[in-house]
Amino acid sequence: MDAREIHLKRRPVGMPVADDFAMVVNSLPELAEGEVQVRNLWMAVDPAMRGRMSDAKSYVPPFALDAPMEGPAVGTVVASRDPGFAPGDIVSSRLGWREAFNAPASALRLRPDTGLPPQAYLGFAGVTGLTAYAGLLKIAALRPGDVVFVSGAAGGVGSIVCQIARLKGHKVIAAAGGAQKTAYLRDTLGVDAVIDYKAEPNLTRALAREVKAIGATGIDVYFENVGGEHLQAALALANPFARFAICGMISQYNVTDAPTVPRNLTLVMVKSIRMEGFIALNHMDIEPHFLADVTAWHKAGLLTATETVHEGIDHALDAFFGLFSGADLGRMLVKLG
Amino acid sequence: MDAREIHLKRRPVGMPVADDFAMVVNSLPELAEGEVQVRNLWMAVDPAMRGRMSDAKSYVPPFALDAPMEGPAVGTVVASRDPGFAPGDIVSSRLGWREAFNAPASALRLRPDTGLPPQAYLGFAGVTGLTAYAGLLKIAALRPGDVVFVSGAAGGVGSIVCQIARLKGHKVIAAAGGAQKTAYLRDTLGVDAVIDYKAEPNLTRALAREVKAIGATGIDVYFENVGGEHLQAALALANPFARFAICGMISQYNVTDAPTVPRNLTLVMVKSIRMEGFIALNHMDIEPHFLADVTAWHKAGLLTATETVHEGIDHALDAFFGLFSGADLGRMLVKLG
Repeated sequence: MDAREIHLKRRPVGMPVADDFAMVVNSLPELAEGEVQVRNLWMAVDPAMRGRMSDAKSYVPPFALDAPMEGPAVGTVVASRDPGFAPGDIVSSRLGWREAFNAPASALRLRPDTGLPPQAYLGFAGVTGLTAYAGLLKIAALRPGDVVFVSGAAGGVGSIVCQIARLKGHKVIAAAGGAQKTAYLRDTLGVDAVIDYKAEPNLTRALAREVKAIGATGIDVYFENVGGEHLQAALALANPFARFAICGMISQYNVTDAPTVPRNLTLVMVKSIRMEGFIALNHMDIEPHFLADVTAWHKAGLLTATETVHEGIDHALDAFFGLFSGADLGRMLVKLG
Repeated sequence: MDAREIHLKRRPVGMPVADDFAMVVNSLPELAEGEVQVRNLWMAVDPAMRGRMSDAKSYVPPFALDAPMEGPAVGTVVASRDPGFAPGDIVSSRLGWREAFNAPASALRLRPDTGLPPQAYLGFAGVTGLTAYAGLLKIAALRPGDVVFVSGAAGGVGSIVCQIARLKGHKVIAAAGGAQKTAYLRDTLGVDAVIDYKAEPNLTRALAREVKAIGATGIDVYFENVGGEHLQAALALANPFARFAICGMISQYNVTDAPTVPRNLTLVMVKSIRMEGFIALNHMDIEPHFLADVTAWHKAGLLTATETVHEGIDHALDAFFGLFSGADLGRMLVKLG
């Protein structure tokens, strides 16, 4: 079988461009013993991939040059030489950015049929959902009465954070860029207040206004996806003992100068704020609870999959670039099969 | 009895100057029922007082103008109209910056005779010690094998942090300003590595060098007293899952422009760092354990009181100013009686 793949050709400086990548056709060899052949149905793109395109030291190694990139994918087994997998099985893997692949069985995770659509494992039932769940419930240790501020609220993780906080009865202030996203957050997800950061000259003043509008004194939990001015606003409006779950700082990923915001970090001390960076992969211990909760919430109509879908691997880079131009609503997916 | 007091006359802008304060002689009235008269033996000054001289919102209210300032003091009861106190008792209070005072019994804390010198309650057996103890053991959750980095290491809190970390078997890298302080840290307190930040053009490189010198890969715990470039260095050299106890940021207190360092805060996310501001007063639940531990450590010769002593209330402001010019070694005390 021939499979198209997206390779990293050179390491981007600043914002990635199409010439940093190449589309390569790979002819899959015969399966070896213990291997499984998978046709990807869906892949997802996320901002953290930008980090792996650089060769800076991080918690995951950088992408190799002239090889297919990696990323979350869900697919169907075509052929198997491993007793644990059979044709037709739905499997998730880190082998996105390619239409099909052969891989050792250990690289695959069998997804039992729970009635969820396969792409749910790239969204609310996958690492994206676990990121929202672990960040909000474990890292930020959400407590009754907490006012929750979410940046990047219309994104893959953010849209799930908003929904979990709402279904648990919290007041939620959601920041996103553009009228379409803020309308979605307010009208579809039902958050209490929205901030269109692109329309606000001063984010701190905007957050202060919305805090007041919902009758709060400040924010107790901040779910951070953006960094920079958003973090500065969250520090300024934090209540004492606020907890910040630091999931991402997308505003900083393509910055070539070292950032100079936030400029009010002393407030961490003044207000006894706890700020903690995390990645979902270090919180797999709570995955069984997470899967039970999100499956129940989804079936009860309390948790919606928010998705932006691009069709075909030839649009995978458009999907990725769209993350940085703000063209995504919810999880950014590419339908491959 | 006449008692001299130091009043705040106007709110300092930037670095405080002598003209911001006034020495006032107060004639103490007759004791009312339920009141106690105390002659202060010792008072302490600390950098956090700078915050209360401003009227910015904080976890403690600002000092009132034209009234004696507040601060930790230990004294002896002269006369008492409360059954809980008798002449000769040693008491601690927040009523420093004055030679003597009348106060309701509720403002005083009786210190039983444990064989510790009275000024210990302003140092390792008081809030200073509890700050070191709670920050290191509870906020930073010190674990076996952790490499500990301490800034402001020769100060009141820092010198206790270094000693607790050492007596528990940890490798300690201590940063302070000047040859006298680094010699004290290395030779008297026995830390593993010292950094004289005043002699280093680049603190991040200096910390990297000392981390390497002690055979470590990075730091696991950072006890923050300084902020700015020190915090930037700690972020740069942090191991994954490092924990930062944010006790103070003295480098920032007199800054009138908003600070622009650290400029590498995204590392909180990249390395899953936890950063938490705290004050000892919110950790009084562990005070009994703390007092038992420090008393035993002191008697066993494992914990030394590091003190700089000024004599007389007319030198109290010199003591306070000395905190910011780096003229202190250990806890900055003023002997009043």
